[in-house]
This record gives sequence, C-alpha cells and structure tokens, in this order.
Amino acid sequence: MTFRARILGAAAGGGLPQWNCGCENCNLARSGDIPAQTQSSLAVSANGTDWAILNASPDIRQQMADCPVLHPTGLREMPLRSVLLTNGDIDHVAGLLTLREMQPFTLYATPGIQEVLDGNPIFSALNASVVDRATVHLDKPTEIAPGLSATLFSVPGKVPLYLEGDTVQTDLLGDQTVGVHLQAGETDAYYIPGCALLNDDLRARLNGAALVFFDGTLWQDDEMLRAGIGQKTGKRMGHMSMSGPDGSLAAFDTLDVGRKVYVHMNNTNPVLRPASPERARAQAAGWTIGQDGMEIAT
Amino acid sequence: MTFRARILGAAAGGGLPQWNCGCENCNLARSGDIPAQTQSSLAVSANGTDWAILNASPDIRQQMADCPVLHPTGLREMPLRSVLLTNGDIDHVAGLLTLREMQPFTLYATPGIQEVLDGNPIFSALNASVVDRATVHLDKPTEIAPGLSATLFSVPGKVPLYLEGDTVQTDLLGDQTVGVHLQAGETDAYYIPGCALLNDDLRARLNGAALVFFDGTLWQDDEMLRAGIGQKTGKRMGHMSMSGPDGSLAAFDTLDVGRKVYVHMNNTNPVLRPASPERARAQAAGWTIGQDGMEIAT
Repeated sequence: MTFRARILGAAAGGGLPQWNCGCENCNLARSGDIPAQTQSSLAVSANGTDWAILNASPDIRQQMADCPVLHPTGLREMPLRSVLLTNGDIDHVAGLLTLREMQPFTLYATPGIQEVLDGNPIFSALNASVVDRATVHLDKPTEIAPGLSATLFSVPGKVPLYLEGDTVQTDLLGDQTVGVHLQAGETDAYYIPGCALLNDDLRARLNGAALVFFDGTLWQDDEMLRAGIGQKTGKRMGHMSMSGPDGSLAAFDTLDVGRKVYVHMNNTNPVLRPASPERARAQAAGWTIGQDGMEIAT
Repeated sequence: MTFRARILGAAAGGGLPQWNCGCENCNLARSGDIPAQTQSSLAVSANGTDWAILNASPDIRQQMADCPVLHPTGLREMPLRSVLLTNGDIDHVAGLLTLREMQPFTLYATPGIQEVLDGNPIFSALNASVVDRATVHLDKPTEIAPGLSATLFSVPGKVPLYLEGDTVQTDLLGDQTVGVHLQAGETDAYYIPGCALLNDDLRARLNGAALVFFDGTLWQDDEMLRAGIGQKTGKRMGHMSMSGPDGSLAAFDTLDVGRKVYVHMNNTNPVLRPASPERARAQAAGWTIGQDGMEIAT
C-alpha cells in the first residue's frame, strides 16, 4: 500500500489564467512564461488503480484527459471510485456536471453540502440510479476507495459565495467547509484547500502528519485590492494568507509535518511565478508549491 | 463589417475524448492520433473586437484561453459582450458558472431557458448587478454585439435531459430548443447545434443563407447502440443524423446554402476521424467538418 496523491488542479477558483483577468500572472500564463494551473482538485489512491477525487473542479474534463491514471480501462470501465466535496463552492462542485454520463461512482459530502446540491435540480444530471450520493458526517471515517479512509472535520470558513446573505460569518465552524483526514496503511495525510484560521484544534490535529495539502489562496490578505482586481480581502473570502503574523507560514512553523504542500492558489499569488522571492521564501520554510500534474507518494 | 465566426468547441456534450469513454474515437484523441475537440460553442463578431458567445460550454475556460481574440484587453476589460443560449442542456449552460467573476456581459435566452436557470440558485453566481439577464422572444431581432443581430426561432427538439419526465416529446416546437439567425451587414448566417427534424419551415428559412452551422451529433441514428456505449438513438436525444434518407446530408442537398458546417458532433461520430470514408462523404456533399479553433469569415 502506497498512498499516492496527484494534484489535478493547483489554482483557486478562476484558475491561471482566469478568463477575464489581465493581471501580471494571468498574462504570463497566457504567454507561456509561467505554467498555467487549473482549478482546485486532488486525486488520491491507496493502490494506484482505484482513485478518489477530492473536489470536482470546472476543469475536470481537461484534468482527467491530462492524467493517465484516470483514463478509462475499457469501453466504460473507469479507475474513478468516488468524488468527495470539501465545500459547495463553484470551483469545487461545477465539475460534477461533467461527470454526468451514466458512469457509476459515489459522491461523498456532508449534509450541509449535499443540501446545496439538492437545491439545484441541474445536479440531477448525475442520475441517482448510477451515482450514489452518500452523506458523510463529521468525524466518521469512510472508505472512499479500497484501502483509503477519509474522515471529514470542520474547518473555519464560510458558506459558498452564491449563498451569502447580507451578513457573512467568515470563520463559521460547521459542515459547509471541511478538511479531510486521509489514512492509507500507516500514512496520515490531510487536505484542507480552504481555511480561515488555524485554530488550536486544527494545530493539534495536523501535528505529526506525514503530508498536508493546505489553503494557499493568497500571499497577503489585501493582495487582490493591491492588484486592482477585487474589493475583497482573503479574510472576507474565508482564507488565511501565507505571509504575515496570522499567516500559514508562521502557523505551521512550530508544527511537526513531514511534507507541506500549498494548493488552491489564487491567480494573483506571487508564488505562482517560479522565480519570485515569495516562492523562495515559502520553499525556504519547507513548503512545496503545488502545481498541476504533481504527484506525491508516501 | 466582416462577419466572423470562430468554433470554440466542435464536439457535442462530453467532448472528444469524453472523460469516461473508451470508444475508438476517444482513445485516438487521447493518444493524439486525431484532434481532440471541446464542447459545443461558437464565438461570433461583426467587427472583430466585440464578440458574442453562442452557448457556454463546460470547457469555456480552456476555450477562451486558446482563443486570442477573446483575451482580456486590460486588467478587467474584455472583448466579450454577451452570451446567448440555444437550449438549457448542460453542454450549453454549465460554462456560465465559469463566467462568474464580476465581469459585465449580457446573457440572452428565451423565457423557457431563463426559467431553467432561475430554477438553479447556483447560477446566481452570475451576480445580477453586473450580468444582465435579457429575455429574448422568438422572432424578435436583438443586437447581441455591435452590428450583429440575432433572431431566435423554434427548432424541433426536447427539454434538457435533466428535466425529462416519464414521457419525452423529441420534436417539441417551443422555446426550449432554438436556432439563431445571425445578421451582420449583408451576411445571413445560421447556428442550429440541435435539431430533431428539418421541417418545411426550417428548409424555407435556411434556403439562400450564406452560412449554416448545423447539428452534426451522429452519423447514423443507432451509432451509440452499435458502439455499445448507450441505449439511446439520435432521435430519442432530439438530434437528426447526418446519413440516411431522413438525415441532414439528404435534407440540405436541395437547399441553396453558401457554406455548410457541421458542429456539435458526438464522440462516436466517424467524421471526427479525418481519414474516415464518412468524413469524405460529407465533404463530397459540400459540408465542412467543424473543429476547435476553426474560423470562418464572410
């Protein structure tokens, strides 16, 4: 049993380049000067032949075409066993619409996330006679692929943007934004693509892990405002930044984690430029900057 | 004024390759032996700088990244003025979720198609304060980009798969499946990616057109059953086939149309193989087989 994780998409919602963005990173990606990155998704397996996908990004068709281990093994035989969702954000659920095609798999999500799907009849494109929607409760281990267990836990976050009301709690602890504890044999790995705050509970949980994929949305909280392309801070979007005293670099500094990998990076994040000083700083702190197609085995 | 049409995606729903399909065409596309094709969408312009997109496919992010005329012209300035939908099928609407990003454009659709969107709160991701949803009635010309008029007309078809009830009328004439009459200066062009039957009304309408993009879903009606990958005929899906006495090759044979281009081709269609006898036959009958990135100007 070897745990394998393959980054299908390393970018946050919008991807790199984002369709309507003329920021420095997006222009560099369009011209091929830095690597383009698709939207947030991770494929995981404990045996190399049966796979689960964590979050179904809008780019899933391209991501699967580019990923040989996920190709059909027969006319309609697939290595995909399940899809698990960590929130109801569009960058994590829109790809479900691509997975319509009468292909059996299990869709795992918390009651709060299943409710979001149930509220949109378009997701009935995943025919209930072939796609089993399995509700997963927090802190209950579930086998999402042979030999691979996933346990969901609450992470400070918010409801999806398209469900926001007049007031928004950005550090809500519930089942709308979750992290995933993956266990395969002796390996403990974590996947947390969205996190507003690394509280004491999370710190205790992650300490000692072999591998953590973590929210790398922004380098600094006001990055989108500085770039002139948005009004929102990272905090308002429910994401802690990498840098600064409240950032993830500082928060993980005292934790014992075997391998730390940033995922879910917004197109404005300077670490997406391989030669940037910000990437060098993150790497010096022991982080790997995730990118499309990167595979990590333990 | 030159009318320009650029095929963003030439394939039907699922694309080529389709994520879960191991048919001959999908395998050839994965190995690079025949060109891959993304899902159904057409970009049109009357001035080369302002564009409308007809149908928002799930692949729209990749399609726009691959299409220089649709790239941002500034930090958040875009050549995209509008999106027009011809039905509520997933391959034509899922891309709307990608177009979230507080970017202004107008979304044109019939009352029947707008109703489908309204029934799914996830589409509120297209914030109503920046994306104007304009209801277009049949047979009323609307300017969808400068100098470019679109008139929608009813085409025999059916409701989207995910809204089908126990009985399905596949030649319904209403506003759920429409064709588009495009006018730019002296040019008359038509876009009909889904059509169950070329009735007398349609024949009269298309006769004399400079350019027609037409439903090329299947080569023959029972093609998916023969390939062992589906239970449905083309007729059941609301699509007339290319070949046979009821097919589009025969139906267009007596019409006077300047240029005929097949789009919306299913992954099983043999015309997707450049060297196939079926493609040769369609070409001999005066048809162009559409493909991603193909541009046609009049």
